[in-house]
Formats: sequence, structure tokens, C-alpha cells
Amino acid sequence: MSETMRAAVWHGKQDVRVETVPVPPSPSAGWVKIKVDWCGICGSDLHEFVAGPVFIPTDAPHPLTGKQGSVILGHEFTGTVVEVGEGVTNVSVGDFVAPDACQHCGECITCRAGRYNVCEKLAFTGLHNDGAFAKYVNIPSELCYILPNGISSEAGALIEPLATGYKAVREAGSILGETVVIIGAGTIGLGTLMAARAAGAGMIIVLEMSTVRAAKAKECGADVVLNPNECDPVAEIKALTQGSGADVSFECVGNKFTGPLAVDVLRNAGRAIIVGIFEESSSFNFFSLSGTDKRVIGTLAYTLSDFQGVSTLLANGQLKAEPMITGRIHLEDIVEKGFWELINNKDENIKIIVSPGD
Amino acid sequence: MSETMRAAVWHGKQDVRVETVPVPPSPSAGWVKIKVDWCGICGSDLHEFVAGPVFIPTDAPHPLTGKQGSVILGHEFTGTVVEVGEGVTNVSVGDFVAPDACQHCGECITCRAGRYNVCEKLAFTGLHNDGAFAKYVNIPSELCYILPNGISSEAGALIEPLATGYKAVREAGSILGETVVIIGAGTIGLGTLMAARAAGAGMIIVLEMSTVRAAKAKECGADVVLNPNECDPVAEIKALTQGSGADVSFECVGNKFTGPLAVDVLRNAGRAIIVGIFEESSSFNFFSLSGTDKRVIGTLAYTLSDFQGVSTLLANGQLKAEPMITGRIHLEDIVEKGFWELINNKDENIKIIVSPGD
Ligand SMILES: [Zn+2]
Ligand SMILES: [Zn+2]
Ligand SMILES: [Zn+2]
Ligand SMILES: [Zn+2]
Repeated sequence: MSETMRAAVWHGKQDVRVETVPVPPSPSAGWVKIKVDWCGICGSDLHEFVAGPVFIPTDAPHPLTGKQGSVILGHEFTGTVVEVGEGVTNVSVGDFVAPDACQHCGECITCRAGRYNVCEKLAFTGLHNDGAFAKYVNIPSELCYILPNGISSEAGALIEPLATGYKAVREAGSILGETVVIIGAGTIGLGTLMAARAAGAGMIIVLEMSTVRAAKAKECGADVVLNPNECDPVAEIKALTQGSGADVSFECVGNKFTGPLAVDVLRNAGRAIIVGIFEESSSFNFFSLSGTDKRVIGTLAYTLSDFQGVSTLLANGQLKAEPMITGRIHLEDIVEKGFWELINNKDENIKIIVSPGD
Repeated sequence: MSETMRAAVWHGKQDVRVETVPVPPSPSAGWVKIKVDWCGICGSDLHEFVAGPVFIPTDAPHPLTGKQGSVILGHEFTGTVVEVGEGVTNVSVGDFVAPDACQHCGECITCRAGRYNVCEKLAFTGLHNDGAFAKYVNIPSELCYILPNGISSEAGALIEPLATGYKAVREAGSILGETVVIIGAGTIGLGTLMAARAAGAGMIIVLEMSTVRAAKAKECGADVVLNPNECDPVAEIKALTQGSGADVSFECVGNKFTGPLAVDVLRNAGRAIIVGIFEESSSFNFFSLSGTDKRVIGTLAYTLSDFQGVSTLLANGQLKAEPMITGRIHLEDIVEKGFWELINNKDENIKIIVSPGD
């Protein structure tokens, strides 16, 4: 008789159920079993709840994992390694880890180039394979980052989303002394903001409509916060930059209007980094690039080396997890106090973290 | 009584007239007067003829040059310095030059960063100031590139458009050994193709509908030429790249469908370089970037250092001007044998060069 556990299972749009499921089997070769401590609710989890399936494969099995249909959500987590599969050498039972969620094939051209975050068969833990809104989860051992002493488990659960903003800043190249615009002060925007500050940005301008998030942006180091409902952001940003526009922008919203906006706020030859997840297409004139030497740089997720960088910056205080955590709840409450709370009180929340208890 | 000369003057849409105008005055401080030898007809000249005003300022004086309304076209040229203004030290009377067309302010942030090709007040010779479809033209001396011995005047007139493709390849970073897609085999596409070959591209795939241009692409070094009317170019390119897509693409058309296509043909984390001049907006989903780590890089024109590079590659045969020249005409014939020829026999022509005679 197999053991059971409680888990938050996505079954369909607005249909996530906390139910009793089998504990994952002993991990296969190269995999480990982790006992989950904290796991954050991501914007992508909320997307699947509100409008799914977005990324969850329902029409065909996922090419890497074979997973199709209902899935345990959750990918921003910490936990303890409780069992290791054959051949695992990088972690041991008892290690406390914050895992990378990018399960990958290791064989495609982007994997071989070291950019496994955009593997051709990328399978995100908790979307394309069972995730960490559960007591236990199995993942590839190579995705384990061992949390150094001095970083709390709660902060550890924020490493994953912080790594996304951290990589976005790295993709911009040096931003030392530059004027930076960040569009949206949700989890990714705030993480990007702190990483940009750490990278030596000169002036950081945040565009945000929610007053609560605007205050968070100030707390996280923004110099100027503009409400795009109350001003013309392009005109304001030009006024703040001697008429030229910003050196760099980070799009952290994923709205069809904010994609082109990220280009419009730039000076000539500036760079727009696109981090948001877009559902709709934009109307976009490519001459806004070929007439200006501007660049648009897409970025998805991170690789494990980014976890090391984020962890170092968390340890020395250049990144902070605490201001981003607006709720701590039990797994049994994830639907009401997690998903619905994030929908009904969207503007007051940044990151809600979830514990399966003991 | 001032001297006069013949010149091709743009007055409006489909209204270019070869007429008698005053010779430009003695050049002011820092400027030179050039006696034109050859001047190519550019796609942008044709745009102004067919659908203008596109770039020509008609509503207000240009902020750098003060020019408004009718203007002498022509910016891809060679000629002899015949008079120099006060303080000119980089060229002397008698020097044979191929000038850069990017008149610029020298004071804005992009000028100060050395990217004067995207000066905030950029004034293109022959669009925002009188150009070289004339016997004489005045330009800033700093834009003069002295043609080395061994490069013909005809080839020299091709340096300007070749420099655009050359810079596009430079903006891609190293393409050594990579699979490259070039969309469009007009002047810019062919120049980009030869520059990509010179930069060590592995396989070069050209998308082109005209059979004449397709043959030119082969002559200029393309490995594969696909007709997008006769195949699904994305599927074909994936088939040629083990299912992944190209490493780099160059959009050299400026059509609302080929902008997004330049992104679609790429493998994950590939780069699309946008060179075309677009009139219409595209429908574009920014998630095609943020879901893939792809980059889109705009590039306009060149700086004078690119003329040096093009000239070196012309001298050693890595770039060729000859295959691109499909017509040599006299200035008096520019409307019939130039503009209308390019419209009526679009697919048979690449570059028509124009001489004002003696
Ligand atoms: Zn996430
Ligand atoms: Zn892969
Ligand atoms: Zn041109
Ligand atoms: Zn300037």
C-alpha cells in the first residue's frame, strides 16, 4: 500500500483542489525526493488558475516528461532532500535546497550551449511535471541548489523568482550609471529593481498603477515611481532624461501595450528587456528598432548559476526577500487564501508563500 | 551672378524633376564642396518617389539642417573635393571621397556615445539636406572617407549601402560557423549576405521571391535560396537545422510580415537583426522573445569606421560591388531610366548608379 500526501492539483480553469494523492515513488537515477518546506505562488500558477491551461499540456503528453492534464502546481520552493536516486553525487539526504525549476533535455542545441532555460523540451516543475504544492516532490538532482547558512527557508523560496529578475539584469549588459525604467512592480519587477540597483543603475524609474506596489517599489530602491494612469510615461521619462529617453527598460507585466512601451521609453540605441508573459499580440512597428539602433532582449527564467548570484546578494543584503512576502498560508488554504486572495486583493499582494506543514 | 547646375529635385510624390538650380555656395566652416562622380539610387529615394514624403520634412524645418520641402536627392556617392571651408584639415582639394550620409549634431547622448548614426537630430544627406543627384554637393568634412587606390569610383558609390549590411552583421556579434537567414536579396540583403560570408557564417539561407535576385544571392555566396511563395520558410529552415531554427536572421525587406518572420525562423536564444524600413505595424507577440531568450536588434546606417571596413573587404574581394550594379545612367535620365525602371522592372534590378557627367 503506497503512502499518501496532500497536494494542490490543477484540474482545469478555476479548478485547483487540495486532495490526497500518492507520495511520489522512490526517485529514479539522477533524481531526488524533496520534503517541501515553503513554496511561493507564482504569477504563472495564477494564470493557470484564472485562464488555464496556459502552459500546462492538455492536448498531448509533454515531450520531456510525458505529463498531460492534471498536475500538482508549485515551483518556487525550499525543502530537504529525503531520498536520492542512483548515481546522485551533488546532494545528499539531509541537504536543504532551493531548486531550479527548469527540467531540460540536455541534448538540444540550446542545452548544449548552456542555455537550458530555453531547452527545446523545457519542462517547468509544477507545470509540465508535478510540483511543490505538496508534502513531497521529485526533481532532477542537477537542479538542486544547496541553500547556504544564513538564508532563511522563506527567503530561499524567493530565490527562484528573484533569479528571473537577476538574469534579466544580466541580459542587459552593464547598466552602471544608466537610467533604468521598470514596468510593473510585482514580484518580478521588484526583484529586477533590486538587481538593477545592485548592478549600479544611476536612476531607476518604476511604472506602477497600484499604490501599495508603488510603495514597495520605493522600499526596494526606486528613485521615481510614475503612475501611467496619471501621466504620459514616455513624456515624463524624456523629461527626466534631458529629452532623450532611458538607457534600459525592463518589461515585467506582459500586457500588449507595455511591450511596445518598453521600446518607446528608450533613447536611441537603448535596450528593452522583455520578462513578462504575454497572452495577446501587440501592434508593433519594427521601424522603431531599425530606425533607432534599439534592441529588444527576451529572457526566460534563469540557470542554476543565477541561484548562486542571487544567494550571494541576499546574504549581503543587496537583494531582500522580506518586503516581497505579503502572506504565509497553509497548503489546505491555498485556494481561498492563496489564489482567490491574489485575485480579489491583487494590488495589495506581492508573494504569498505556502507551507504543507509537517 | 551665381553659377548653376543640373540636379534631381524631389518636389512631392511621383514628382522628381531634373532642373537647373544654383550651385551650392562656398562651403562654410567645417564643410566641403564635392564634385559628384557617381551616385546610386537607394530604396529610400524610391520610397520618397513612390510614397513620399516618408523621411523628407515637409511640415516643419528639419531641426539640424533647417531644410523643409523640396530637396535634391542622392546620398550613395563618390566625388572629388573641390573646395574646403574654414578649419577643414581631414581632406584637401583634389581628394577623391566616398562620403558617409549621416549628418549629426555631435551634442546629443547618442552622438556623445559615438553612435552618431542614430543622432537625435540625424539629417541624412539627400533627404534632410541637399544631396548628390547633382553636379555639386556640400557636406560636413568629417563625413568624408578618402577612397584608397584600387577601388573604382563605381564600387566606391556602393560603399554606403554596403556599410549598412556590414554594420548589421557587426551588430549580430560573432556569427562564426552559425546558420544565418537573410530575408530579401535587394541591395542591403546582398551586402549583408557578403558581409555574413566574410564573417565566417556556416550556412547562409536567403529568402527571396524574384528569380533574378535569387540568382544574385547565389552569385554572392548564398548556400540555399528559398522562395517563400513556394514553401513554408519556417518549416524549411527548421528542416535545415535539425529542427532548431537559425542562429541569426537579418530582415532586409521592411514588410509587416517579415519582421515577425525574422524572429520565427530562429532557434531559441537566436538573434534577429532588423535592417528594413517598415511603413506598417506588425502583429507581434512579445512572448516570442520572453519565452525563448531571443533578441531583436535594430540597426540604422553605419558610422565612418564601417566605411573603412567595407573598403578593406572590397579591396581584398570579400565584398563585391560589381554584381550589384544593374544599371548606369545619366542624371538627365534619372526619372525614366532610374525611378520608373526600378518600379516597372523591380525584380531585375539591384542598384542603378547615376552620373551627372562633366
Ligand atoms: Zn515562478
Ligand atoms: Zn534541451
Ligand atoms: Zn541608401
Ligand atoms: Zn546628435
